[in-house]
Amino acid sequence: MQNVYFDNTEFSQRRTRVKTAMAKAGLDLIVCADPANMDYLTGYKGWSFYVPQCVLLHAEEEHPVWIGRGQDGAAAHLTTDLPADHILPYPDHYVQSRERHPMNFVADYICRRGWQRARIGLEMDAYYFSGRGADAIRADLPNAHFSDCDHLVNWERLVKSPAELRYISEAAVLVSGAMRAGIDAIVAGKRQCDAVAEIYRAQVSGTAAFGGDYTAICPLLPTGAGTGTPHLTWSDQRFKSGDPTILELAGSRLGYHCPMARTVFLGTPPTKLADTAKVVIEGLHAALEAAKPGATAEHVEAAWRHIVSKHGIRKESRIGYAFGLAYPPDWGEHTASLRPGDQTVLAPNMTFHCIPGIWEDGWGIEISAAFVVTERGGKALYDFPEELVVKG
Amino acid sequence: MQNVYFDNTEFSQRRTRVKTAMAKAGLDLIVCADPANMDYLTGYKGWSFYVPQCVLLHAEEEHPVWIGRGQDGAAAHLTTDLPADHILPYPDHYVQSRERHPMNFVADYICRRGWQRARIGLEMDAYYFSGRGADAIRADLPNAHFSDCDHLVNWERLVKSPAELRYISEAAVLVSGAMRAGIDAIVAGKRQCDAVAEIYRAQVSGTAAFGGDYTAICPLLPTGAGTGTPHLTWSDQRFKSGDPTILELAGSRLGYHCPMARTVFLGTPPTKLADTAKVVIEGLHAALEAAKPGATAEHVEAAWRHIVSKHGIRKESRIGYAFGLAYPPDWGEHTASLRPGDQTVLAPNMTFHCIPGIWEDGWGIEISAAFVVTERGGKALYDFPEELVVKG
Repeated sequence: MQNVYFDNTEFSQRRTRVKTAMAKAGLDLIVCADPANMDYLTGYKGWSFYVPQCVLLHAEEEHPVWIGRGQDGAAAHLTTDLPADHILPYPDHYVQSRERHPMNFVADYICRRGWQRARIGLEMDAYYFSGRGADAIRADLPNAHFSDCDHLVNWERLVKSPAELRYISEAAVLVSGAMRAGIDAIVAGKRQCDAVAEIYRAQVSGTAAFGGDYTAICPLLPTGAGTGTPHLTWSDQRFKSGDPTILELAGSRLGYHCPMARTVFLGTPPTKLADTAKVVIEGLHAALEAAKPGATAEHVEAAWRHIVSKHGIRKESRIGYAFGLAYPPDWGEHTASLRPGDQTVLAPNMTFHCIPGIWEDGWGIEISAAFVVTERGGKALYDFPEELVVKG
Repeated sequence: MQNVYFDNTEFSQRRTRVKTAMAKAGLDLIVCADPANMDYLTGYKGWSFYVPQCVLLHAEEEHPVWIGRGQDGAAAHLTTDLPADHILPYPDHYVQSRERHPMNFVADYICRRGWQRARIGLEMDAYYFSGRGADAIRADLPNAHFSDCDHLVNWERLVKSPAELRYISEAAVLVSGAMRAGIDAIVAGKRQCDAVAEIYRAQVSGTAAFGGDYTAICPLLPTGAGTGTPHLTWSDQRFKSGDPTILELAGSRLGYHCPMARTVFLGTPPTKLADTAKVVIEGLHAALEAAKPGATAEHVEAAWRHIVSKHGIRKESRIGYAFGLAYPPDWGEHTASLRPGDQTVLAPNMTFHCIPGIWEDGWGIEISAAFVVTERGGKALYDFPEELVVKG
């Protein structure tokens, strides 16, 4: 079928660029198991990545080939523009079997196509491409020349097309609504789960013009001492006066994400927290200002560090990452990181989440900005107050 | 810290059973990367499986060791009962780096402990244990004896403890509320995303007594021709009169799931759909009746098939699977499947999702039951009408 969310040229342009990257890397064929890369190359959507599946792209073929579980073949017909003979469902006895692995089926197909001596790239560190899958395909194709093409497609996703930017902007509207709902719902005595229910509702119901999709990470909501670490989720306990709460959320429009983090304090925040918030926001602004085309990712981080180190703040982990089209468990693109040593050169229409989270012993703070690289620096994708939210 | 959701003996019993299984398999050490197995062995919770992490269990040690990203170390201290020196955060330069992999860090630790010649089990097909991770740890430990211990812990999870069954029963209450909200919200002219917003709200807000957690799969909602395939999600299009819609949902209580699927038809259903529904329900009842201790998993499937084949229904894929504690992207346990050839012997307090989905060209139906194995057969975990839901 024709993909309804992009015009035809979008996919052909993507495939052409990826093939150019393949040629540079000396690859005849790539096996993409990352669901975001599968979607990027074909438009395929469906929560079927809980079983092995992949998209093959051969340098000399116009269309990729989708291989997945039998019952998901119809989803590939419905969501992609692939010709029917480029959709290959595998039989159900490959599912969770000790005797055979879906990657054996993939290897058989590669042989049938006469590609068994090809130079084949595998996404060796992709989610859902397991050690057993990697061993199976390599063992079945002893004459192929394998290499690790991890992130080859991801790097091609770094600069967003106008259509992609439109969806990311819509996701920015979704996350703004979800964050507003979350902040409003954080009240002493109210259960955390009831606040998260409001967040989900806003994320998915969206606006009158468009709705939202599931996000690659669930709402993160560490509270109290839990704010010393970023990836805790909610419970059904009640918010307490005197506690900070961190909200890290995203909106997703057709899989295109826009993330945001904010911190809420119920009561009068400790001086340390309020002071840290000010410094974090000043550093965040410095980072965005530095995020101009031609600057490197590490340069952006240095601009932040220059500000915050004057105030005695140290942070070991990266302060941001590229984002865009994503599937669970992560909305990061796994390409450029805003951290020392990353020499990725920024270009217009790249999108980053700058999230200089501070996590100390028993407390923490996150105030972030998702931005697009423009000639004037990083432009925040939403207009949402950058502050430590203090509620009575 | 003490885990607040289980008493101390729960974890020590789990570890003892897993060590017995390790002894049988001839293993000194297992490296568990499956987040559900990590949780099962330690209580660890956190959405941190987007980076490599694992729990090591050594046959001669009382406590497992948690290894994960630096910023998640505090989450391990907060959610597990592990001694502080059994929590090993790795530095951030291991994160998404081309030069080093977190599994190099794990291998270093294994060497430091003097286990470099041990018989080590790797969960080779676990989610989030990538080909590159598997290659890294194997290359760094050339004198170790590696084998695939995939599902070793999963199989120990098959029979649920009384505490686990309590949480699964609470999840059954959550999914019942979510399904009711979903069915009520499926109305011609209403947007799909608005129905899913109500589902999420019910899943998470739960009851006055307890709230719900995120589920391992998002709400699945194929509609119209999309019902011919099971894993499509919602859009912001409107429900249409004359269309079927499938809802496959779960509730999650502390990670313990309870799934359910139902099918809704807006208008007067085609005879084929209504007739198929009746046969599916009759087959479902036959399967539950057969699910007694001592029966095999394939025997349960045969009981279903005996009924439905009389009506000309054929189904290639399995009709069910074990479920329980789960993390994205799947709430199945990846152990017993209700399908021909699976000779798992059923025992009391195993939990299965019997979901004999029928997906044909352009239409489909799902009516399922999550059940616990009892002496009298499979007992549904919820009391929710088993029917094709017809709405005006």
